[in-house]
Amino acid sequence: MPALAFKTCFRVVWADTDAAQVVHYSNYFRFFERAEEEFYRQLGFTFTDRAEKGLWFPRVEAFCQYKKPARFNDLLEVELSIEEFKEKSIKYGFKILNKETAVLLAIGHVTVVAADKRTGKATVIPQEIVEKLKRFSE
Amino acid sequence: MPALAFKTCFRVVWADTDAAQVVHYSNYFRFFERAEEEFYRQLGFTFTDRAEKGLWFPRVEAFCQYKKPARFNDLLEVELSIEEFKEKSIKYGFKILNKETAVLLAIGHVTVVAADKRTGKATVIPQEIVEKLKRFSE
Amino acid sequence: MPALAFKTCFRVVWADTDAAQVVHYSNYFRFFERAEEEFYRQLGFTFTDRAEKGLWFPRVEAFCQYKKPARFNDLLEVELSIEEFKEKSIKYGFKILNKETAVLLAIGHVTVVAADKRTGKATVIPQEIVEKLKRFSE
Amino acid sequence: MPALAFKTCFRVVWADTDAAQVVHYSNYFRFFERAEEEFYRQLGFTFTDRAEKGLWFPRVEAFCQYKKPARFNDLLEVELSIEEFKEKSIKYGFKILNKETAVLLAIGHVTVVAADKRTGKATVIPQEIVEKLKRFSE
Repeated sequence: MPALAFKTCFRVVWADTDAAQVVHYSNYFRFFERAEEEFYRQLGFTFTDRAEKGLWFPRVEAFCQYKKPARFNDLLEVELSIEEFKEKSIKYGFKILNKETAVLLAIGHVTVVAADKRTGKATVIPQEIVEKLKRFSE
Repeated sequence: MPALAFKTCFRVVWADTDAAQVVHYSNYFRFFERAEEEFYRQLGFTFTDRAEKGLWFPRVEAFCQYKKPARFNDLLEVELSIEEFKEKSIKYGFKILNKETAVLLAIGHVTVVAADKRTGKATVIPQEIVEKLKRFSE
Repeated sequence: MPALAFKTCFRVVWADTDAAQVVHYSNYFRFFERAEEEFYRQLGFTFTDRAEKGLWFPRVEAFCQYKKPARFNDLLEVELSIEEFKEKSIKYGFKILNKETAVLLAIGHVTVVAADKRTGKATVIPQEIVEKLKRFSE
Repeated sequence: MPALAFKTCFRVVWADTDAAQVVHYSNYFRFFERAEEEFYRQLGFTFTDRAEKGLWFPRVEAFCQYKKPARFNDLLEVELSIEEFKEKSIKYGFKILNKETAVLLAIGHVTVVAADKRTGKATVIPQEIVEKLKRFSE
């Protein structure tokens, strides 16, 4: 069975753009993160629970390749998949497409590590989170 | 003796701009705040001390009038003055000028309240901070 | 007949927050603008048309009063209304509420001026736009 | 002769941080770009000239590895070097250190392509720019 991907759509707002009249390159990383947040939300993670458990997901690596520019008012589709799933870290892959034209705008990845909020140290991802993420990674 | 004003300069960076090829209107509030931070730094406030005392300065009001656009690579001069100084709050006035042409770009104000970090409640501004701020408010 | 208000909802994302673990004060202005963009979209303005007519809506004034902090993952309701409607300018009023608790978080306004893209000068708002906006202003 | 590196310092401002009380991961890319802008400025590029020649430097790839968090008020040193210098593109390498502790916070790279503003197509980097950049690339 192929791994599932999670898809979500965002509209490019004026504040995302820069003087080249395209989305500023740093904002693609904000789109990646926002897709990740919606992914957790859809899986039923309440962020309060995560906070109570004292769990963070700090980023240790981020990458983006820019294919075509996104512009104000474009509707973007962001596709998230799990590229690597380890005991203490997850590597999320991302694709951003123009939803109306289906043109691929960017691809990238972000690696997050589960960390204990108090100690700051990497920690094993809790089993109940592993269960929910598993079907997106095989 | 007239009140003193504090001045600092910032260069407009590419990420400050939007698709109208001018600085995004929300970023003027970031310039205001950054001037305020440099003002505290010049007065010798160590932010660690403030944190240890459990003091925040949340904003309760912000205003900006936009006169002329600022553009990429412009050198801005931000002038901060104290417009009102109360027991628990400070109203900072701001002017932003193009440093090279002396053209006035924006005026505004921001009101901050001293607050206890733990309770979130408004609190009297500590006397040693009052002393340092006084000569900016005559 | 009372004037209509336009409402839209946004989720607070991680990138909206600052080290006080609340939404950064400048980002309320981005919420205001985003509500305005959705308002235009709902009225059927195609941004391409506006660009072809060479029309901008630069901001000349912005104001916000902060009542209660918004936090990561909060669902916000932004309400837009027309507070003043002149020949060449519109003053939009905004309220931001926590959608789940109905607590008022912020109120503000933004005044925009219709401007010719080429000359940069203020210009009369085109009649077809006036028609669409009218029912929100009386 | 070893290649030269360009160094510049930035103070972390409040607006750079997020609710984890560290610099938001997307903002490292803004630091990279800001260092690149100061590098061009120091080399004597006037951005007006570049605009007149109709030259852009769109980003085609960006990468960052996060080693240690940067926090509000930290003084950062950003080091820029040229990792690859081709006919139409430049790969800039970046290191970000805490200036006071000399701790390495992040490393990364950004690849930019010279592009004609009107056509959007990749173009050969003008010889006078090549001359100025050369001593940073060998």
